Amino acid sequence: MMDTMPHWLEKRAQLTPERTAIQLEDGTDHTFQKMRDDAISFAYQLNTAGVQRGDHIAILSQNSYEMAVAIHALSYIGAVGVLLNTRLSPRELAYQIKDSESAFLLYDERLNDKTVALKREDIHARTISFTDVRSLKETSFQAAREINLNKTFTIMYTSGTTGFPKGVQHTYGNHWWSAVSSALNLGLHEHDRWLAALPLFHVGGFSILIRSLAYGMPVHLHERFDAKKINDEIMENGVSIVSVVSVMLEEMIRTMGDDQYPETFRCMLLGGGPAPLPLLKACKDKNIPVIQTYGMTETSSQISTLSHEDAIRKLGSAGKPLFPAQLNIVKDNQLARPGEIGEIYVKGPMVTSGYYKRKDANARSFKNGWLKTGDLGYIDEEGYLYVVDRRKDLIISGGENVYPAEIESVLKEINGIYDAGVAGKKDEKWGEIPVAFIVKDESSEVTKESVIDYCKTKLAKYKVPKDVFFVHELPRNASKKLLRRKLSERLNGDM
Amino acid sequence: MMDTMPHWLEKRAQLTPERTAIQLEDGTDHTFQKMRDDAISFAYQLNTAGVQRGDHIAILSQNSYEMAVAIHALSYIGAVGVLLNTRLSPRELAYQIKDSESAFLLYDERLNDKTVALKREDIHARTISFTDVRSLKETSFQAAREINLNKTFTIMYTSGTTGFPKGVQHTYGNHWWSAVSSALNLGLHEHDRWLAALPLFHVGGFSILIRSLAYGMPVHLHERFDAKKINDEIMENGVSIVSVVSVMLEEMIRTMGDDQYPETFRCMLLGGGPAPLPLLKACKDKNIPVIQTYGMTETSSQISTLSHEDAIRKLGSAGKPLFPAQLNIVKDNQLARPGEIGEIYVKGPMVTSGYYKRKDANARSFKNGWLKTGDLGYIDEEGYLYVVDRRKDLIISGGENVYPAEIESVLKEINGIYDAGVAGKKDEKWGEIPVAFIVKDESSEVTKESVIDYCKTKLAKYKVPKDVFFVHELPRNASKKLLRRKLSERLNGDM
Repeated sequence: MMDTMPHWLEKRAQLTPERTAIQLEDGTDHTFQKMRDDAISFAYQLNTAGVQRGDHIAILSQNSYEMAVAIHALSYIGAVGVLLNTRLSPRELAYQIKDSESAFLLYDERLNDKTVALKREDIHARTISFTDVRSLKETSFQAAREINLNKTFTIMYTSGTTGFPKGVQHTYGNHWWSAVSSALNLGLHEHDRWLAALPLFHVGGFSILIRSLAYGMPVHLHERFDAKKINDEIMENGVSIVSVVSVMLEEMIRTMGDDQYPETFRCMLLGGGPAPLPLLKACKDKNIPVIQTYGMTETSSQISTLSHEDAIRKLGSAGKPLFPAQLNIVKDNQLARPGEIGEIYVKGPMVTSGYYKRKDANARSFKNGWLKTGDLGYIDEEGYLYVVDRRKDLIISGGENVYPAEIESVLKEINGIYDAGVAGKKDEKWGEIPVAFIVKDESSEVTKESVIDYCKTKLAKYKVPKDVFFVHELPRNASKKLLRRKLSERLNGDM
Repeated sequence: MMDTMPHWLEKRAQLTPERTAIQLEDGTDHTFQKMRDDAISFAYQLNTAGVQRGDHIAILSQNSYEMAVAIHALSYIGAVGVLLNTRLSPRELAYQIKDSESAFLLYDERLNDKTVALKREDIHARTISFTDVRSLKETSFQAAREINLNKTFTIMYTSGTTGFPKGVQHTYGNHWWSAVSSALNLGLHEHDRWLAALPLFHVGGFSILIRSLAYGMPVHLHERFDAKKINDEIMENGVSIVSVVSVMLEEMIRTMGDDQYPETFRCMLLGGGPAPLPLLKACKDKNIPVIQTYGMTETSSQISTLSHEDAIRKLGSAGKPLFPAQLNIVKDNQLARPGEIGEIYVKGPMVTSGYYKRKDANARSFKNGWLKTGDLGYIDEEGYLYVVDRRKDLIISGGENVYPAEIESVLKEINGIYDAGVAGKKDEKWGEIPVAFIVKDESSEVTKESVIDYCKTKLAKYKVPKDVFFVHELPRNASKKLLRRKLSERLNGDM
């Protein structure tokens, strides 16, 4: 009994048919009733194409209304969506399609070139574009009226920052609890409008779609990140919540100049890794209500966030685990003391039950219902989480632990530095040494020497970058998360 | 994994220790941290008294901070609370204590006289007052850190309006989903304060305690209903939501005179049976944001409510079933057509899994996961529920169905009539005839004849009361729900 509930889109269309479900960049809006009708039609057409309950269906698309409709259509069929990152190479995509045993690849025809290249990779999946599907006749069937919370809804591959891609399985229940947990934390206002510029193929974007159904809330769906456009949406179109990562927020602040966001804007939900303190301070100065979060694909988005009331007092913290979630710090197989850095373990109904077909990884990552995240952090005396770094990026230099994010935060304090990434370079004497990659303002007079001198004033000697490279941009994935692994590769060759 | 979550009070005290959990009528407030510490102490003392995991513990208390602490203490032990209605006679109470197999009776010493009488009823439960428990030493044990959503938390006996008392079992999951469903419907504002004047021993009051934990929201807990005090709380103390039944709301409106509630007040949650149209119209005139609801003990409070945006267009409707809930109208074992009156069936994770030890009643009431409520209603063309009446109160006169609530609604339109109840009187010719009981303003000149004349102008002849009795008050239960059965007994002797 506890495991079933009404089909989300069907229910939402019954409750508030005329409310906006999705508003696009050009102002077009689609109501929940229209999205429901379009998803049913699309499901009937997929049925004609041969898609069946339980099938895995890979989706390759940028953010679009059609992509949302396709996802909901799969839920009417009871098929599982495998959401592909459009930035991946054909070879990487083919790996995920095969690993997930996808029967079909649904793609947006704007990605036709990539799809053509992908077909050469022998993917064993039938390939069909959104437009092709929509040209099929509709074969009706008994569309799902209920959702079983224990069934898998999506598979998303973990981003490259944490190693070889693994398919994270999300049940409907994972997504549901994530949406509910977020509401209990952030509140739920009648006039909320949530902007999604993060890709829907990552959980940070996808989760906004689910919240929209559960809350009856419009999503402002952007195809890609454009700081000015997002600022305009906040200033003029009543957007009240935006999900961002640090690099996006930094650009939004630069772009907005001396403006201030209106009172209708109530939450900048900041995820995707530790945020640099200078950024958080800049937000404080501009009265931008930043909610710093910690989460990952495996936790179906946020699992810990810093509440409004603590935003300033605990600047830089990712707060406390959401109401239905638990979080522990473990060091040497024991609970760490307050302030002691260890591995972050999480537990809760929004946490994936496991990676698809990865018995070994599952055995390694899950223990008595807890997920070992591989991330490092500590909890202070008052119970606030501070995420120190991703374990994978940890630099060990002369036996001392060096956390790249800490150094990056210092580098970003320097005037004229837009972006910074730090990685470890192999070193005969010390094991590894930290090296900085910097994106600077072209007019800036920052030099390698001035950077190192500044760091010396702020950091223990072993943490000061031993070399500095000025670059035009840093490698980031589609969620704008810094790929330090790529920096390491540049420093060390193929790792 | 999906079935466990952190212990609610423990978690809430970790998240927002300093927020107010309960504020009493005298202004005293208790934080979540204090309530947590008090509940742990009380649990340790109950442990000393011999209360064990899985025990059923009857609680006899008016609304008080101590009662809330006792309830939470049971959840730390994993014991089940059997919540007793303080208005019942010793004999009725003894029945519930025995039927629920309660090992202990915990009572507020202010109800000492009733408890003394109760002990004579041979209840086979150890009897101990809150004060006595607090005088015991604390014996510590491993208090629950997690909650299993499938375990029973409370048993509440169904009110007399629907027949012989049956113990409705609520799991933690039932209460959780109820709280979440309410938030998804009403929204969740940072500054919400919910006033509970409904008794905590009924689900309408109890559910406010659970919402408080899930939302981190203060409850203004009143020992009993006092219209002026509640109005003051709304006017001066920032209360934003109040749960009421019609008779309470009517008195609040009379008491407030020409005042208007401030903008901080955002929701009058109206339950406990069909609301009379004149009341809803009066609220509309005074800009009181009434949300009409339909629910019962078996659904852990509201299961269908009328949303803000429809409040005026659909005056008198109980709206649509909450997001995780489903509702059907069944007539002659088939789904009724729009507009057709039938029995209301409900389904959802907030619906009880059954009555305690009532195999026959459970077999009668549950069908494929649906609960047959015994209530009558219809759904209009747009999907809005109209509750017509409780089946048990249905008057059948000359083969025509007569719904008491409809007649009462007309009676309340008459100037000088405060309250009205209608029941069926046995009649040789017609089977039953409707009879009215009326509470009028003492200065009013309303007479039996003028009442009947007015009804003749509003109702079909067979619906017009054939007799009218003026009384000082109507029989209502502790939730102020009209007990039409009592009226029937007055008319027909022992039924």
